[in-house]
Amino acid sequence: MNSQHEKQTDLPQLAQLTAFIDQNWDNLVDSLREWLSIPSISSQPEHGADVRTAADWAQEYLKKIGFPQCSIIETAGHPLISGFWKMNESAPTLLIYGHYDVQPTDPLDEWQTPPFSPDIRDGKMYCRGASDDKGQVFLVLAALQAWAKVQGAPPLNIRVLLEGEEEAGGEAISLYVREHGDELAADSVLICDTAMISPTQPSLITGLRGILYTELAMNGARHDLHSGSYGGVAPNPLHGLCLLLTRLKGEDGRINIPELQAAIHPPDAEEKRFWDEDPLKIAAELAREMGVTELVGENEFAPLERLGVRPTLEIHGILGGYTGAGAKTVIPASATAKLSMRLPAGLSPQTVFSWLEKAVYRACPAGYTVKLHNLHSGDGVAVSKENSAIQAASRALRTVYGVDPIFMREGGSIPIAALFTSTLNAPVVLMGFGLPDDNIHAPNENLSLEQLRKGMKTVAAFFGYLARG
Amino acid sequence: MNSQHEKQTDLPQLAQLTAFIDQNWDNLVDSLREWLSIPSISSQPEHGADVRTAADWAQEYLKKIGFPQCSIIETAGHPLISGFWKMNESAPTLLIYGHYDVQPTDPLDEWQTPPFSPDIRDGKMYCRGASDDKGQVFLVLAALQAWAKVQGAPPLNIRVLLEGEEEAGGEAISLYVREHGDELAADSVLICDTAMISPTQPSLITGLRGILYTELAMNGARHDLHSGSYGGVAPNPLHGLCLLLTRLKGEDGRINIPELQAAIHPPDAEEKRFWDEDPLKIAAELAREMGVTELVGENEFAPLERLGVRPTLEIHGILGGYTGAGAKTVIPASATAKLSMRLPAGLSPQTVFSWLEKAVYRACPAGYTVKLHNLHSGDGVAVSKENSAIQAASRALRTVYGVDPIFMREGGSIPIAALFTSTLNAPVVLMGFGLPDDNIHAPNENLSLEQLRKGMKTVAAFFGYLARG
Repeated sequence: MNSQHEKQTDLPQLAQLTAFIDQNWDNLVDSLREWLSIPSISSQPEHGADVRTAADWAQEYLKKIGFPQCSIIETAGHPLISGFWKMNESAPTLLIYGHYDVQPTDPLDEWQTPPFSPDIRDGKMYCRGASDDKGQVFLVLAALQAWAKVQGAPPLNIRVLLEGEEEAGGEAISLYVREHGDELAADSVLICDTAMISPTQPSLITGLRGILYTELAMNGARHDLHSGSYGGVAPNPLHGLCLLLTRLKGEDGRINIPELQAAIHPPDAEEKRFWDEDPLKIAAELAREMGVTELVGENEFAPLERLGVRPTLEIHGILGGYTGAGAKTVIPASATAKLSMRLPAGLSPQTVFSWLEKAVYRACPAGYTVKLHNLHSGDGVAVSKENSAIQAASRALRTVYGVDPIFMREGGSIPIAALFTSTLNAPVVLMGFGLPDDNIHAPNENLSLEQLRKGMKTVAAFFGYLARG
Repeated sequence: MNSQHEKQTDLPQLAQLTAFIDQNWDNLVDSLREWLSIPSISSQPEHGADVRTAADWAQEYLKKIGFPQCSIIETAGHPLISGFWKMNESAPTLLIYGHYDVQPTDPLDEWQTPPFSPDIRDGKMYCRGASDDKGQVFLVLAALQAWAKVQGAPPLNIRVLLEGEEEAGGEAISLYVREHGDELAADSVLICDTAMISPTQPSLITGLRGILYTELAMNGARHDLHSGSYGGVAPNPLHGLCLLLTRLKGEDGRINIPELQAAIHPPDAEEKRFWDEDPLKIAAELAREMGVTELVGENEFAPLERLGVRPTLEIHGILGGYTGAGAKTVIPASATAKLSMRLPAGLSPQTVFSWLEKAVYRACPAGYTVKLHNLHSGDGVAVSKENSAIQAASRALRTVYGVDPIFMREGGSIPIAALFTSTLNAPVVLMGFGLPDDNIHAPNENLSLEQLRKGMKTVAAFFGYLARG
């Protein structure tokens, strides 16, 4: 994919950085175990004290590494951790983002070992938070620790900003970034909170789709009706929603919003070729992961294109009528559907909302009224492959993994990445060391120790390459 | 509608029966108040003792009227009350069915007076159960009481069978009827548990639709997916259900099951003319009741035809994904829909289930699997207008109301009516004295006192006409 096979720039400190990581491996793993043992589940109030303990642990570790400035920032929810290690005025500044909170652990009985007792087996560290995101935050800290040991300080100015509400949808960090954008000034941002395609094929995420999350409310009769007395003449908003939703998107997966289709830029020819050739056999891999025999959607587009840049429209839930056990013959007066759209970077979710709203009115069958509500939205992100931070990350991955990374578009949305892009006007490097089978948000979450170690070395190299520009 | 303007057969006892009801009106109303005050909510275990008290009250009233045989029959749930008053071997036998249990009362704060403190205002008795069904059972008992006073006994053999689980979907009565069909032998059945069109237009129900209640389960991927990571290639059973359900029934309201459409008999020409002419302005009345400006469904058929004999397919609920507050971007692995069909009398719900099952497989979009479950079903009922019991009821209504009754098809299903029809092989007279604004199953349930009084007189006359054949 990356056709620029430029000569590998030598990094004089690399051997020492690598040696530090290898020689201190057991200590590093023990430190990570310690952090992982703290059940910092941000969405469960009974774990409030644990979240605080995990924040304190991170602050202590920053101090231990040698951060001259480092503080806990109180918020309305869980605290932020801020650190700054200033090299000199002329050096570039990198902002490192991550989160120290974790997902809940249900269903508990599906864990092979207790979720907060880190257990190493088959070369993997099993623990809630191992991959998402404590393990990946820790590998960045270990890379900084290596630089501190090898030459007393990182090779560039480093800001760290960690949050404790990522898994709970908390607003503290976005409020903070909006209010303190000036203090956070950085030339680039590093987020290690994603996964690679495979342990032998490093990848960098150069695009994230935006998101628009809406709720569609449909009304029929004034009050609920009995299907015996009114079935055959009454509007049934559950049926009305089905009609409307299939008009917005049919079996072919195409979204029937003309303004949206017209606004989609044709993809870069090289990227399009890569998607169409599917050299990584993503289509088969996706089918395997989902346990299906065929993919559903816009089959005239390659799966990678559909996941990375095509807009999507998904129904997440339909509420109305009766869904308990047994039978109830109600025709509900109203019903609502939760709908989200993933949007190619560059499209404003607000604009798309107005297009969707028009399409909803057009598609509404006779006898019903509808109203569309905008619940939340987030911009997409697109980073040029030519950007120097992406180039530094690419070089670091090639150095450690021995192969060029693939540039991927990620289908998901990371609102904080979009916020850093827009508020700080800094490119975001999304370099994750997770793997597809890490079981994040699921029982038996794990992180490959090989990935942990390579991640530390890659990030250490990244700092060096980035510092040199 | 009833073109047989035969000369009114005189009923010698009618003046005395009517006089008894008028002269004892206050006592009769007081007795009904007493019964209504007992909160016999069958679906709420905390009211178990009240249900029993209401059963005891009914048994005592049967004794007071003069029933020579009368007993409480224990069941797995709430008791049945059985009474038999034998006139002589050669007289016809009428089985009277009703229920003494009532619906719950929520939302309680919408009641103008407490639900179990019978309150008379504006000529109506307000109380839970006033119309459904204690008030209507009571008017039948009062008619029997009148006959007992006037000539010592009813003019024909009377069986009474009351249940206490109608509002809780209990099975006790159907088990009993199936096991004791022989002992219940009757020439016809009277059920007063429905409503008339208006206080000036009596009506008799000559048809009930059957019901088939199913649950449709659709599967996509092996487990729930995140719309960011899989949106665009993943099956979404919520969307799959929408596609399937709109293929089963489009905006035109027509059910796409060819076997079903082929099995529908063309309606009787006279009935069809009545539906099409809509002399009662039912279309406008239905729109008013529902608070809508247009009816939804098969607009090429008249509303009365759509409600009474056309098959319907309604979605009662769709379960799957996320329907709580806020946003969650899940693509569920599976989703289910509750679907019911109302069926013209004469069609076997089992046969229709097999047709629906085939239609569901045909309509299932690519990438999904479906399974249809039969939750329950009930046969429809059709009684000929020429039947002597219907003729006797018609005559009684004309005598008391001064106008011919209209013969109506009712859209709802009354499974016990179908069971009486099939088990006892006896025609069912569905002669209700409720009105459309009785608020049954809702706050401020009421029964018009005028309807209560006319109902007593009509049922008394009905006994007389039926006895004479």
